[in-house]
Order: sequence, then C-alpha cells, then structure tokens
Amino acid sequence: MKRPWKGQVEKPPEDNVPRHDPNNPLCPGSTRANGEVNPEYDSTFLFENDFPALQPDAPDPGSDHHPLFQSKAARGVCKVMCFHPWSDITLPLMQPEEIRKVIDKWAELIEELGPTYPWVQIFENKGAMMGCSNPHPHCQVWASSFLPNEPALAERCQREYLQKHGEPMLLQYARMEAQAQERLVLENEHWLVVVPYWATWPFQTLLLPRRHVLRLPDLTSQERDSLASIMKRLLTKYDNLFEVSFPYSMGWHGAPTGSHLKEDMSHWQLHAHYYPPLLRSASVRKFMVGYEMLAQEQRDLTPEQAAERLRGLSEEHYKITAK
Amino acid sequence: MKRPWKGQVEKPPEDNVPRHDPNNPLCPGSTRANGEVNPEYDSTFLFENDFPALQPDAPDPGSDHHPLFQSKAARGVCKVMCFHPWSDITLPLMQPEEIRKVIDKWAELIEELGPTYPWVQIFENKGAMMGCSNPHPHCQVWASSFLPNEPALAERCQREYLQKHGEPMLLQYARMEAQAQERLVLENEHWLVVVPYWATWPFQTLLLPRRHVLRLPDLTSQERDSLASIMKRLLTKYDNLFEVSFPYSMGWHGAPTGSHLKEDMSHWQLHAHYYPPLLRSASVRKFMVGYEMLAQEQRDLTPEQAAERLRGLSEEHYKITAK
Ligand SMILES: O=P(O)(O)O[C@H]1O[C@H](CO)[C@@H](O)[C@H](O)[C@H]1O
Ligand SMILES: O=P(O)(O)O[C@H]1O[C@H](CO)[C@@H](O)[C@H](O)[C@H]1O
Repeated sequence: MKRPWKGQVEKPPEDNVPRHDPNNPLCPGSTRANGEVNPEYDSTFLFENDFPALQPDAPDPGSDHHPLFQSKAARGVCKVMCFHPWSDITLPLMQPEEIRKVIDKWAELIEELGPTYPWVQIFENKGAMMGCSNPHPHCQVWASSFLPNEPALAERCQREYLQKHGEPMLLQYARMEAQAQERLVLENEHWLVVVPYWATWPFQTLLLPRRHVLRLPDLTSQERDSLASIMKRLLTKYDNLFEVSFPYSMGWHGAPTGSHLKEDMSHWQLHAHYYPPLLRSASVRKFMVGYEMLAQEQRDLTPEQAAERLRGLSEEHYKITAK
Repeated sequence: MKRPWKGQVEKPPEDNVPRHDPNNPLCPGSTRANGEVNPEYDSTFLFENDFPALQPDAPDPGSDHHPLFQSKAARGVCKVMCFHPWSDITLPLMQPEEIRKVIDKWAELIEELGPTYPWVQIFENKGAMMGCSNPHPHCQVWASSFLPNEPALAERCQREYLQKHGEPMLLQYARMEAQAQERLVLENEHWLVVVPYWATWPFQTLLLPRRHVLRLPDLTSQERDSLASIMKRLLTKYDNLFEVSFPYSMGWHGAPTGSHLKEDMSHWQLHAHYYPPLLRSASVRKFMVGYEMLAQEQRDLTPEQAAERLRGLSEEHYKITAK
C-alpha cells in the first residue's frame, strides 16, 4: 500500500446524467434495439436483453470423445431490469419502498425462471469501471441450463461443510462474525454485512441473512423491508467512502433451482456478494492482473482494516449532506 | 459481440515515452526509492522490488482452530527485472539476441530462487490497462514459501491426468493442437502458440514447448533462441492486431521447486500464459465483471475465430512497416 501510484487513473463517473434521455434505450418511452417501445414505467421495468449472451435455442456443439476437448450447449435467457424510471438516481438515493420493489421483483424472477433453469444469476454491474455501458440504474438476470462454475463450487463446499460440521457453513459463519465484530460493517434484525475473512477486493462485502434462508422468494415481507434498509445503508457508506458513485459488481447466490427445487438443499444459505474495484481513491483501482491471474489473489489491505473504514463512514449520503 | 458499445473507452498507451528519463527509477543511472543508484546497465537489470508484497520475514498470523478462520504466514521475495536500458522499447521491437538475454535471466532466477522457494512466479504486466505503473519494459518475480492457488490447481490436474492417461496433459494437448491446426497461431521447431480450447480472454494464448520440459533452466540453448524468435513473432502479431502496443499480463508456469526439485514432477510441462484484455479495438476491453465474477467466465468470440485473426496478421511490426 506504500508504493507511489503512477499507473492508470480512472475518470470519475459522469455526474450530470440527464434524468430522462429519449435516446437512452433504458428510459421510459424509449425505443429499444429490437424496435419495441418501453412503457412509461414508474417503478421497476423488466425486458429481454436485446443482445443476449445466452439463448434458449443455442445449437449443440457436437461431441468430441477426447477428454481434453469437451463442450456442451449453454442455453438460457438474459433479461435486464431497470430499478427506477430516472437515469440520474442510484440505489442508495432511492427510497426504501422503491428498493423494496426491486427486491420483490428479484424474488419474482427466481420464481418465474427457477422451475426451468438450474441457475438464475441476478447481478448488477455498476459504473463504467465495471463494464457497465448505461448509467440508467439497472441489473441483469442470466438464467442458464447448467450450474456455472462459481455456484458449482459453492454447491460442493456448502454440501461438504454441512456433512462434516452439522451446520450450514454460512449460517455458522454469520453467527461467528456477528460475535467477533471485527469484520462487521452493518447489522440489523435480519441481516449482516461483513468484509469476509477471505475478501480479495479491497472493500468487498458479503450480505447475509441471520436466519437460514435458501432463496430470495423465501424472504418474509419484514425481511425484505429490512434488506432494503441495510442495502441503502451499505451503498450509502460505499458512496461516502470516496464521495463518488461507488462502482461494483454485485449479485445473489441462493440454492440452485430447476430439478434442485425438489431436493434437500439445506446446506445452502442465501447471500449477496459486492465486489468493488476501488482501492485508495475515486480514481485508483485495484488491478487483478499478473500475480493474481497466474498465482493467487492478493490483498492490499486487510479485511479488518476495510471493515473499520466502512464502519466509520456516515449513513447519510454525501449528496444529501451537501444540500 | 453485436451489441453497441457505449461503455468505458480506454486511453491509447502513451506513444511518446522518452528513451531515457532520469526521474524514472527503472532507468540506468537513476536513484530508486531506497536511495540506491542503478548501474549504467546495457542489457537486463535485476533488483529487489522497493515495495514488495512478499517479505522473507513476514510475521506468523497466529493460529485459530476454527476451520473457517485459517491463515498462514506468506513469506517470499519480490524482484523486478528490466528487459532493456531504453524506456521506449518493448519486447517485440527488441532484437532476438536481446530477448534471448531476458530468457537466460528468467532461467537463472528459477535456479537462484528455486532451491529456497516452492514457487517462483515470473510475470509481466504490460500496459496501464493491466495495472502496470511504469512504461519501462520490465517484468516481476515473486517467489513464495507456499504453492499459490493457480499452480496448486495446475499441480493437481496435471498429476491426475498423467496417472489416468499415461501421458503429461500439456504434452498430449500440444500434439493434438499441432495436428488440429484450428487454434494454432504460430509454430517453430521447438514451440507452439495456440489460443487454448478453454480460453476466456478474447486473444488469450498459450505458449508450449513441443518437447517434455519441466522448468525454464532445462531449456537448451537452441530452444532458447527458438523461444526468443517465437515470442517476437507472437508479440508483433499482438501489436499489429489493433496497431497499438498491446497490453497483457503474461507469466511462466513450470514444475514447482523447493523440496519438489527432488521429486518426480514428470506430470508437469512448462508453459507461458498470455492474458490480453483487448477485445474489439485498441480502446474497448473485455470486462470480467458481474456474470464472470459471480457465475462463470464467458467468451465474446470463439478461440478458433481469435486464432484465425492472429494467424492472418503480419509478422513485421507496424512501426517498422510505417518507416
Ligand atoms: O507491482 P505493481 O506493478 O506495482 O502492481 C501491479 O501488479 C501487482 C501484481 O500483479 C498487482 O497486485 C497490482 O494491483 C498491480 O497494480
Ligand atoms: O451485458 P453488458 O452490460 O453489455 O456487459 C457487461 O456485463 C457482462 C456480464 O458480466 C460482461 O460479459 C461484459 O464484458 C460487460 O461489459
């Protein structure tokens, strides 16, 4: 952390995004790439991604019998969900009731796509630094005919842990972190936010329910309100860290769906990961490059230091304080 | 690949780096952060990283007996190696004899640090886009008291493959790719470059010897000359792809060292990985973000398409052609 930085400096995110831009395909009333016109929506708005990475009818690549050359068809659907009709708002500046609507829609998406697909990945790429190509607040949903690598690993580790230790791994983990406090960022009646013990991104966090919950639709109404509240508090702290709309990629991991809906998946615990790239300031990011790609991810500050920084930040958004 | 790009656009790399800058700590004759003065070197130059991520005397973190909270001391050394006295040159523009000196130094480093450390990671972060903070041509060497995650995985997979199939995995793989041709980018008497079947980065390549070789020091003089030649050809093609000094992270994986030097490591095959971030142009990169971090890496073009693009490019550097 002591080395001088003469490397790449990021441009700050645009701070003058117009509230409504008729040429932005994510805005109410805009025409999208496929010619469809968006409704004049006033809350969330869901549509099929016009440039989907997964398609329901992807061709079978055919089979090669050699063990080194194996491939399979990857089928699925990709959707986009706008969080709000305004382009110049972000989750931490939305009202808890508005965030609650996003959460309800996430749960609905798992219910709608879960029966068909074993994995429904809800994720948000926020900020140009995280490859986001549109400032309008939105997330994506990619549902696939297969269990992708990361959830497959989470499935195996959680299954083994329950077998070996008699308690779901992340339930035990949450309890221990709530006790230890040192990596805790936020808590309320139903949820915890920690900088996980194994964090690799500088200000990475893990959002966990206290109760054993398998999937988003299982959350009670109270737990959803409480989730909206803790999300707003976390994202406000994130924005306050460098007084910038904080970039990150985030997403939900819950028990696999499809045929797994009928299986005992009690080794799973619902959680969300937040992976922010920023390190020292609004313009110096953490590069996961040579050593990280070829050998092992390495941290520039400890999770305890990161948690302490985040704990110390105000829960009032700097843009509101400034007014 | 069809979606319009309105996201982050990268600045082109600086094209007017001065050949010599007395304030650049990597130049001959400069004073470094620790007060040492670099010699007036005229070939490669090796020194200890003034801001090392690994240190030989890192304290022991102490032990926690809970399975979820395990940590160990990570000890090691970090070195930097300049490739050339000039700041305005890069490997593809260097003479084969100059590249050969870099290769010899790499081999020496494995011989020097190998007996003490089980893993010696040689890697180059090239370009600001890959977190490189100094344009002077250089690479890094981080030797560690432990086998990092990626090599540990490579160790396990190659060991299992040899046991099961009776031939080192990457030796068999190289033979099959040389036959199939469709992912082949370059070949000579001793080496192959392919876009690997499992490539995730758009123009990722794998550099492999044809012969069974465990580590860099095992390369014959002829094989080293031949390596210098194929590196120059590959990196020239990379630069020619978008007519820009092509950013990447690259590094070597050979059989682990330390106590493994005395063991049978014949399941290993030496290889180098090249991971370039560029996708469609000199300024549009591939973002490994939401879906990739949370679910699975996904390709924007097939390895066969990438190999075909690279095969079609000239082996004369665009800067030389322009003269
Ligand atoms: O050591 P450097 O060049 O200062 O730093 C660069 O390479 C390191 C090893 O891949 C990374 O951890 C840093 O994020 C990156 O900026
Ligand atoms: O789908 P988008 O927002 O166009 O694209 C973004 O997210 C995708 C999923 O993480 C990535 O594959 C792309 O590299 C990134 O630019």
